[in-house]
Amino acid sequence: MNKPITNPGQLASLAGSPEPVTICGRVYKIRRMSGFAFLLLQLSRPDSSGSGLLQCTWLPELAGDLSELPAEQSCIALTGQVVSEPRSHSGYEVRAVSVRVLSTPIEDLPVVINNKALDMNLETLLDYRPITLRNEKERALFRIQEGICQAVRAFLSAEDFTEIHSPKLVSEGAEGGSNIFRLDYFGKEAYLAQSPQFYKQTMVGVYGRVYEIAPVYRAEHHDTSRHLNEYIGIDLEMGYIEQFQEIMELETQMLTAVFRHLNEHQAGELALWKAVLPVIPEDGIPCMTFAKVKETVRRLRSANPIQAENIPNSHPAPESEPTLDPNSNSSLDLEPEEERLICQWIKQQTGSDFVFVTHYPSAKRPFYAMDDPENPEVTLSFDLLFRGLEITTGGQRIHSYPEQTAKMRQRGMNPEDFASYLMIHRYGMPPHGGLGIGLERLTACLLGLSNVRQTSLFPRDIHRISP
Amino acid sequence: MNKPITNPGQLASLAGSPEPVTICGRVYKIRRMSGFAFLLLQLSRPDSSGSGLLQCTWLPELAGDLSELPAEQSCIALTGQVVSEPRSHSGYEVRAVSVRVLSTPIEDLPVVINNKALDMNLETLLDYRPITLRNEKERALFRIQEGICQAVRAFLSAEDFTEIHSPKLVSEGAEGGSNIFRLDYFGKEAYLAQSPQFYKQTMVGVYGRVYEIAPVYRAEHHDTSRHLNEYIGIDLEMGYIEQFQEIMELETQMLTAVFRHLNEHQAGELALWKAVLPVIPEDGIPCMTFAKVKETVRRLRSANPIQAENIPNSHPAPESEPTLDPNSNSSLDLEPEEERLICQWIKQQTGSDFVFVTHYPSAKRPFYAMDDPENPEVTLSFDLLFRGLEITTGGQRIHSYPEQTAKMRQRGMNPEDFASYLMIHRYGMPPHGGLGIGLERLTACLLGLSNVRQTSLFPRDIHRISP
Repeated sequence: MNKPITNPGQLASLAGSPEPVTICGRVYKIRRMSGFAFLLLQLSRPDSSGSGLLQCTWLPELAGDLSELPAEQSCIALTGQVVSEPRSHSGYEVRAVSVRVLSTPIEDLPVVINNKALDMNLETLLDYRPITLRNEKERALFRIQEGICQAVRAFLSAEDFTEIHSPKLVSEGAEGGSNIFRLDYFGKEAYLAQSPQFYKQTMVGVYGRVYEIAPVYRAEHHDTSRHLNEYIGIDLEMGYIEQFQEIMELETQMLTAVFRHLNEHQAGELALWKAVLPVIPEDGIPCMTFAKVKETVRRLRSANPIQAENIPNSHPAPESEPTLDPNSNSSLDLEPEEERLICQWIKQQTGSDFVFVTHYPSAKRPFYAMDDPENPEVTLSFDLLFRGLEITTGGQRIHSYPEQTAKMRQRGMNPEDFASYLMIHRYGMPPHGGLGIGLERLTACLLGLSNVRQTSLFPRDIHRISP
Repeated sequence: MNKPITNPGQLASLAGSPEPVTICGRVYKIRRMSGFAFLLLQLSRPDSSGSGLLQCTWLPELAGDLSELPAEQSCIALTGQVVSEPRSHSGYEVRAVSVRVLSTPIEDLPVVINNKALDMNLETLLDYRPITLRNEKERALFRIQEGICQAVRAFLSAEDFTEIHSPKLVSEGAEGGSNIFRLDYFGKEAYLAQSPQFYKQTMVGVYGRVYEIAPVYRAEHHDTSRHLNEYIGIDLEMGYIEQFQEIMELETQMLTAVFRHLNEHQAGELALWKAVLPVIPEDGIPCMTFAKVKETVRRLRSANPIQAENIPNSHPAPESEPTLDPNSNSSLDLEPEEERLICQWIKQQTGSDFVFVTHYPSAKRPFYAMDDPENPEVTLSFDLLFRGLEITTGGQRIHSYPEQTAKMRQRGMNPEDFASYLMIHRYGMPPHGGLGIGLERLTACLLGLSNVRQTSLFPRDIHRISP
């Protein structure tokens, strides 16, 4: 017996062949017609349309009585003939001759998952995630995410970056603050890594350029549409830079490569989501300093307060969004509303879906961020905003031992607590910097989704740790 | 100014060109000769020899007085001319004209790292890991590991596997037992995933074939040379199988592809480790049932006890190795010594560096393992042993809801505690199975290293959570 087919790419060439083929898949949908039926078989991989659905016809004279049709969600091995059928989107269909049922559901699904889009609220979609992911459009989403990772790896590998695996169980938190998960590690306190920061810097001392795509943990107490407690970080770090703008240039090239890859390999999946690939202007992504952004937002708000309030809110802030205290942090960081506003303005002014915001205040950046020698109040750092949302934080790091220990002491930190990290500064580090991209945020902004939970297979938030 | 060169691949074509080039790297070693000096510059990437060391000459008449030589471990931008030099392993060398020092160490290294191999005990090597990794041979090791991951992804992608990212913060332990890390998750108890088992099975219901390369957590209390508390699992799961041997076939093909890739792309790095690529016989990896292995080992031990004791112990058991209780588990699992013995015997008999051991006792396999219908005392499962060490566990899983819940009840488990996992069985799952490979173990066996700590960048064990 020939191996059963699970990939539609193998089928097209068989159209018209008298040889029957056996195809394995899931019964996605049965459409009973007058005297026959369509059986939509869901294959493991999509064809070039982005869909993995294969139209099969069940003609009683060939396949048996309609009462023998397998149940929806059954997994089957269907034997039939591939025939040309111009009315099918693929140009062919399969006429069932026989079906072997491999497994059947024990009951009907509790939710409808075989429509074009899932019609249910987010909580239900996530409660039933193991089966709602079987929806064709959901499948397409995470294939797009796979495409992003593949394109990132191909790009970085060609740019001489080495892939690393750093530990997620750590003894020192890199980002500080209270949003860190603690656990007992054989009687010692350990943490879940908030970022691979220390390790990717360490590995720049080894390989010059490194990257990692791996989970990152933030014990965020906020229940917002932008935060996950476990997310996939695309982290890179590069040595021998002359200025931090080189990291922004690299990210621009990388994103360009990612969108080119998706356009070539996942146009079908993107079309299922009606996703429009973003615009990166030919002369690069526009850059504004943090101070300039603040000033522009102020101007926009005062000049046209009604327009500012009417900005399409693609990332609505839920009720528990931390409230803005105008006396404290508002001058040191951008509020979500400000990020949306500046992105809309940049889009109007330049056509760009992205904007780099540079020179964030030193007070709000971690201790390893390099201050601007011309103005130590700000850092040689940047965020990348994409359609209203921050998807990247990056910047140049301090590489000199005296500078790093001085800045730590300034902040009331004891360098001895970070002895193993500081080993790299002590024994020579090239000038370097890097960035971290949130994979779920990038995917959400690309597809125009308002909640990052939609772009995580099994999201973790303050309320949810299952399924 | 041209961009500085960090990749030796770009240099060869410049040999003999009158144009000076600027190259960035780390001063790996200074060799003072009579009237001049060799400066070995460590570049970010290796050339085809597997080495990233570039021989530069410092001639006082060109570059200045020898007293101006930069310190070892400095990071520099060296400008010079590429000249043919048959005595250099690359066929050329660089004559320094000027050097810009980018950073210098604040003191001499506490350990010698620029010899061919590191001459220190494992604890010292790991205590100073951020700098011992700068050793050229250590760098080669983790490039080989990168090559393994690249080859695995390329192979699985071509075999229609979809890459997934499953959560590591979970509410249910897949493997059971006590070796699970617990943490407080906003007032609820959560665990670190012992494997992506539930999620990869779930995703087989979505994509048919899936894989993931990601961290796995085991709260092992044993301090052995084979265990890490955090390791990188290469996990795959495939649907629509007819028999579990298909998974073994796939693994054989995958390993063949991995070694072919390493031979093509990392022969230089392998040579630095004097690593011999393993033999996989043309007719496949030999298979033995668990029962047959037990019997053979018994026979070997009684027939030739002296020979058995003389087996090269490539994975020595440290003192705290759990002692063997002949009355309990010894009949249900293989002891490390038995794994070594059977591997040596298979090597003698067949030439193979690998052996599949199949049909492990049901009592020692997890609740999701499918029992052999012909003998429910054993499972449709396997381990893969490589040069004396188990590197893979795999097998077919139960896909039927009634079967799975029955087996859980038999074991005193409450299916309601696993409701979200069992959703997949409830609503139709294809027959499926999969495997998990420990990346560090695979790398260690490949390079002939006796301790998996050597093949983890920053290993985690019962005593070590830093650096």
